Amino acid sequence: MSSPVPQPPLTIGIDFGGTSVKTGVVCGAAVLGEIERIPTRDHPEPERLIAAIGDTVSRMRVEHPGIAAIGIGVPGAVDFDRGVTYNLTNVPGWSNVPLRDRLSDLTGLPAVLENDANCAAYAEFRCGAAQGFRNVVVVTLGTGVGGGLILNGDLYRGSQYAAGEIGQVSIDYRGVDGPYGNFGALERYVGNQQITEIAHRRFHEAGRPVTEEQCSPEVLAEAAREGDEIAHQVWHVVGEYLGTALASVVYLLNPDAIVIGGGVAHAGDVLFEPLRERIRSMLSTEFFEALKIVHARFGNTAGIIGSGALAAELVE
Amino acid sequence: MSSPVPQPPLTIGIDFGGTSVKTGVVCGAAVLGEIERIPTRDHPEPERLIAAIGDTVSRMRVEHPGIAAIGIGVPGAVDFDRGVTYNLTNVPGWSNVPLRDRLSDLTGLPAVLENDANCAAYAEFRCGAAQGFRNVVVVTLGTGVGGGLILNGDLYRGSQYAAGEIGQVSIDYRGVDGPYGNFGALERYVGNQQITEIAHRRFHEAGRPVTEEQCSPEVLAEAAREGDEIAHQVWHVVGEYLGTALASVVYLLNPDAIVIGGGVAHAGDVLFEPLRERIRSMLSTEFFEALKIVHARFGNTAGIIGSGALAAELVE
Repeated sequence: MSSPVPQPPLTIGIDFGGTSVKTGVVCGAAVLGEIERIPTRDHPEPERLIAAIGDTVSRMRVEHPGIAAIGIGVPGAVDFDRGVTYNLTNVPGWSNVPLRDRLSDLTGLPAVLENDANCAAYAEFRCGAAQGFRNVVVVTLGTGVGGGLILNGDLYRGSQYAAGEIGQVSIDYRGVDGPYGNFGALERYVGNQQITEIAHRRFHEAGRPVTEEQCSPEVLAEAAREGDEIAHQVWHVVGEYLGTALASVVYLLNPDAIVIGGGVAHAGDVLFEPLRERIRSMLSTEFFEALKIVHARFGNTAGIIGSGALAAELVE
Repeated sequence: MSSPVPQPPLTIGIDFGGTSVKTGVVCGAAVLGEIERIPTRDHPEPERLIAAIGDTVSRMRVEHPGIAAIGIGVPGAVDFDRGVTYNLTNVPGWSNVPLRDRLSDLTGLPAVLENDANCAAYAEFRCGAAQGFRNVVVVTLGTGVGGGLILNGDLYRGSQYAAGEIGQVSIDYRGVDGPYGNFGALERYVGNQQITEIAHRRFHEAGRPVTEEQCSPEVLAEAAREGDEIAHQVWHVVGEYLGTALASVVYLLNPDAIVIGGGVAHAGDVLFEPLRERIRSMLSTEFFEALKIVHARFGNTAGIIGSGALAAELVE
């Protein structure tokens, strides 16, 4: 007879975004039942939004009485040890809110507060594309470029909980300004909008007028898959930019794996092939062969699953 | 009455270099007595060099019977967990040597084997300029650019023990090739020889013919301190290169402190001022103010003290 397989604890994962606060019941890599959404702007005051989250949690506990802890990921810097938000991107009024303890007081459950990029990285590490690896770099490609680091088998947060800002790594000391005046910041080269601009320019130079929509990463990926040479060139350039930054990160951190997610990563092979080639060209054969470069497992649910997984850590 | 101050254990620290193997008795930040040197090339076979090191250790134990462990730092990659050298820079014949266990068998003492840049970083962390900090980046500027990382209060080694290669971080995706074909590798911009080349070119362009000796980092630093405008410009450029890479590292790792050592760092303020200014310009005020940028405490003894400190960890 085999012993029963241990079940991961049942937790609540909350992905606090600028548009909506999404809450789900998490069990390992699965979200059980429906994800509930609260429009963020419906509750401009933190206390009212916290109360609304508390109501959602109460309803979910009726259906799942075994829920043991709550995790919440927010779009901005947090003080992890104190469980306090510093400030949130695109959500005014949230500086210095002791969100972790407020949620814990309201529900009587242990809670954990983390930055959303770290939650997404933790999701990939605990039950996604980086499961079983010890040192992992997770990159999220979208409007901006986010990141999270797993080092020695745990989230690495840094001295002010601000580590993992891969989007701010410079790829050109003479380059364009990033949001903090940092020259050559990666996200100013491979963000959604920047990819569209590169494509627009390249098509224009080739005498092929295109609309902005035809230059979106999604359309561009489709065009490249269908064999469009200019679309391929655009992804090649994006792969060079991104690969340069990631090779630097590999030299610094010597990870087992790089996990790449976010909307832009849906381009798939048309991005991953030139990206791998660039990284290969910048590393010794030995280190390139030891390195996994993989697509993220989770998409929109990464924040919920990751915050739920962090919550599970509290009670395991 | 106060209790006696605990003394750090007495260990042997060995700095295995391409020219000589230097051995000293280490107690905290101090090397007790003379440092013994064995010319590396006198013993081209590993076994003979190991025997010579064993003799040195025996002599030192006669004088210091309390010696409890041995640490050895080597110029190249190691398998830390197995205590085996992968291969050593400029020292042929040392691939796959189980140096840690050979030394331990020979002396009956516990031993530890580490890469020399990691030893230097550990020296600064345990008893040098980074003592008391939790997350530290240590950079050594010389012929090449080396580095070591202390993360969460311990040496961070990475998946193949190869982390901390700050000299290979790219500062220009279109830049010159590094040793592994990596474009824009920092050490191809701020190594000893590169600084000399920048200076030579700048003086030449200004119509001031100079010898190569007059362009050495040492002479250049003196010239800048005496007010030479071109020498200042050279250090400004070097500060920009180095600052760009270090700002990237800060975004990634959010350390408490950056420690800068090695021969080029002896330039002092003429380098540190433009370097700090560059890093300041690339970070938010909050993060720049939380970051210490300091000169290394140890020079040539860093390898001995760091390997001795790692040995002390074995018996503390």
